[in-house]
Amino acid sequence: MSLTPVLTRIDTDLDGALDRLMELLRIPSISTDPAYKQECAKAADWLVEDLKSIGFEASSRPTPGHPMVVAQGGEGGTHVLFYGHYDVQPADPLELWNRDPFDPAIEDTANGKVIRARGSSDDKGQLMTFVEACRAWVAEHGKLPCKITIFFEGEEESGSPSLIPFLKEHADELKADVALICDTDLFDYDTPAITTMLRGLLGQEVTITGPSKDLHSGMYGGPAINPIRVLTKICANMHDENGRITVPDFYDGVPELSDELLGQWDALGFDAKSFLKEVGLDTPAGETDKSVLEQIWARPTAEFNGITGGYTGDGFKTVLPSQASAKISFRLVGTQDPLKIRENFQNWVKEQLPPDCSVTFKDHGAGPASVMATSNPAFEKARLALTDEWPNAAAFTGSGGSIPVAGYFKTILDMDAMLIGFALEDDSIHSPNEKYDVRSFHKGIRSWARILSELSA
Amino acid sequence: MSLTPVLTRIDTDLDGALDRLMELLRIPSISTDPAYKQECAKAADWLVEDLKSIGFEASSRPTPGHPMVVAQGGEGGTHVLFYGHYDVQPADPLELWNRDPFDPAIEDTANGKVIRARGSSDDKGQLMTFVEACRAWVAEHGKLPCKITIFFEGEEESGSPSLIPFLKEHADELKADVALICDTDLFDYDTPAITTMLRGLLGQEVTITGPSKDLHSGMYGGPAINPIRVLTKICANMHDENGRITVPDFYDGVPELSDELLGQWDALGFDAKSFLKEVGLDTPAGETDKSVLEQIWARPTAEFNGITGGYTGDGFKTVLPSQASAKISFRLVGTQDPLKIRENFQNWVKEQLPPDCSVTFKDHGAGPASVMATSNPAFEKARLALTDEWPNAAAFTGSGGSIPVAGYFKTILDMDAMLIGFALEDDSIHSPNEKYDVRSFHKGIRSWARILSELSA
Repeated sequence: MSLTPVLTRIDTDLDGALDRLMELLRIPSISTDPAYKQECAKAADWLVEDLKSIGFEASSRPTPGHPMVVAQGGEGGTHVLFYGHYDVQPADPLELWNRDPFDPAIEDTANGKVIRARGSSDDKGQLMTFVEACRAWVAEHGKLPCKITIFFEGEEESGSPSLIPFLKEHADELKADVALICDTDLFDYDTPAITTMLRGLLGQEVTITGPSKDLHSGMYGGPAINPIRVLTKICANMHDENGRITVPDFYDGVPELSDELLGQWDALGFDAKSFLKEVGLDTPAGETDKSVLEQIWARPTAEFNGITGGYTGDGFKTVLPSQASAKISFRLVGTQDPLKIRENFQNWVKEQLPPDCSVTFKDHGAGPASVMATSNPAFEKARLALTDEWPNAAAFTGSGGSIPVAGYFKTILDMDAMLIGFALEDDSIHSPNEKYDVRSFHKGIRSWARILSELSA
Repeated sequence: MSLTPVLTRIDTDLDGALDRLMELLRIPSISTDPAYKQECAKAADWLVEDLKSIGFEASSRPTPGHPMVVAQGGEGGTHVLFYGHYDVQPADPLELWNRDPFDPAIEDTANGKVIRARGSSDDKGQLMTFVEACRAWVAEHGKLPCKITIFFEGEEESGSPSLIPFLKEHADELKADVALICDTDLFDYDTPAITTMLRGLLGQEVTITGPSKDLHSGMYGGPAINPIRVLTKICANMHDENGRITVPDFYDGVPELSDELLGQWDALGFDAKSFLKEVGLDTPAGETDKSVLEQIWARPTAEFNGITGGYTGDGFKTVLPSQASAKISFRLVGTQDPLKIRENFQNWVKEQLPPDCSVTFKDHGAGPASVMATSNPAFEKARLALTDEWPNAAAFTGSGGSIPVAGYFKTILDMDAMLIGFALEDDSIHSPNEKYDVRSFHKGIRSWARILSELSA
């Protein structure tokens, strides 16, 4: 089956593909907020109907959380499992958006046209690149170029509580020769990337309780312990003066990188200065003895994702609060054990509690880091296909983000995963005014059409 | 004019007085939140009408913020200025209230009947004790027992931005022989107090900005500076291991207490253990070398009243936020200079900023501490009147709370102030389920009737 007419069809049908993506973006499928449960189901249903229209056998599968979408189609060639997630991050702070985050639009910018909406880049726009590539193959040739299983999750942004049980229960249905995951970035504007190292993630919410109720800071300030004071002390103790994390045994399992890999990364010519400048920064704030690229791709971190306590509205309230809490995420690398680190972290917090204070912990996911087996021939095929589509040759890279599903595909389904995505650093994922370049979307669809062509052989 | 029939009338009209108070409590006059501006004006108007009904010449006076209420009535005797505030604290967290905070009710409790509502104790219930005492005098004798000026503020809970200009502009109208302020506690259930030492208050909101926008903690975690990390470090540095505040020169102007005063306070038999136990605590958390009573009445503090940054909703969001902020209040004593401390604090914060971070400060009031001149004969008259009403003799005490108006009455109007209030420690002011004992309200009215009788001579 010829690739050329498929690529032509992708070019001529781009407006149609954008319209379909915008339909999906209009569904506010925020998985972390229970108020949007129906919307998550609606997004899953929309995808099922769209996949059916291409000829997939598709269905929405209930879980204790949000549904999974599973679809089967095609035959022959390399059997691929394609993974993406239809859930999105919350859109707040809403006042910083230049438009309704769930009313998508194509906007002209200095760098070309972009699709502006929550989820446009992470991950609805990305997953639709693959769906559209399938659609073009089927429209042109009446069938898919190889056997394809599609697997869309609706809980990626909220710790994936249903993922492991679902993978275990449906292993037969989901197992393929190789997994394709579209949730990562281009290396740069002209250089596609196949991500082969992913950091793991451990999410912890820490709540400190002091007095049994909120107090008047005039009447009790001084003798009554203030949980914000306790919490900020603990947070302040998390990093030493060299930016290293002080939780005991935290660095167990963090590998030293090979000179070969460091050399490859050096050759990429990563511009740390520009990377930071783009977000208003100048000085790397991580471990003082590591390069910025190492800090992101290959070193563990502890970040404060949220903190709250006392009165946070307009104006002032002289309250001495009963509670204060922080959401903290640890990015993990190598063979760091998330469950061991969770235990050490919780003990470390408890040891710092002054009298009269108690602490509770809420778990928000615990996934290990993963490193892909680039020896699988599918990696070289994909690298060639991407190199054909983009100005520069494709690179094997690391990623600071955590996509635990790649690890689970290996451990549960014994399947390698290729992480290929078309997002850009400036897409503002998880931030106000998220966007996805129309170019990313268009060339992304063409990239998958090429990769599927290579894998059909 | 005889006092006895006035007291009798107060006893028989208690239900009427409670009904009037509940009308006022139904108005959600939250001064710190701009959404409640109209409600503040409504509360002021309600008070003007009520004062007119007793025969006062009363009016609501506009300010750039919320209106002041000024009323004049009576003649002869000691000319008193009575001060209270009709604005209230925000009611959040609403879910911790056992009823709508602005739908007051009389509830039976183990300690007798209470009025449950936001503002019941702070300060609507307290200011109405004086209004009801006036009402009873007028009803019984056709006139007030002495010359009375009433002055109600609507911005006490939001830093009193209009207070100083208003006092300066209306000094002739407001100047009296002595001020009466009803915004403080009984010393204990049976012991009335005349507060002679008040802590000052400096309110500061600190906002740290790092990256120019919210970032994905996977993509930027490590090299990008996290403002929550910076803010918590600064907060953690605020107190040393002995509970002393580390801002340079902070203790300038903090007096050593005389042995005489410490002896008087010892004689009060303050039970620090019970005071802390009531709010679920056991160990004093303030300066390690000071008693609990000293910590509250006579030592300065720094308290974190609120902190916020990043994602604080349900679930988890792996954001690396652009900003984080904290609301901090300093309680001041002796001759500590709030403006000097503000400057030192801001410089101290700036010196701790790492590269790429900036800070902004928002002012929320700056009032010095004040110490009353108990040699004014009105103090002894009031002490005798209170001792007649309550089981135990009245005490001269300190107060941890900050009532800057007392200082301004001295500095701007050259007038001593007597702080007499009937609130109890367990009133939960500034907290959910605020209440005011019906006994406090009833005996408070009777106390003022007695004090006015003494001051009429």
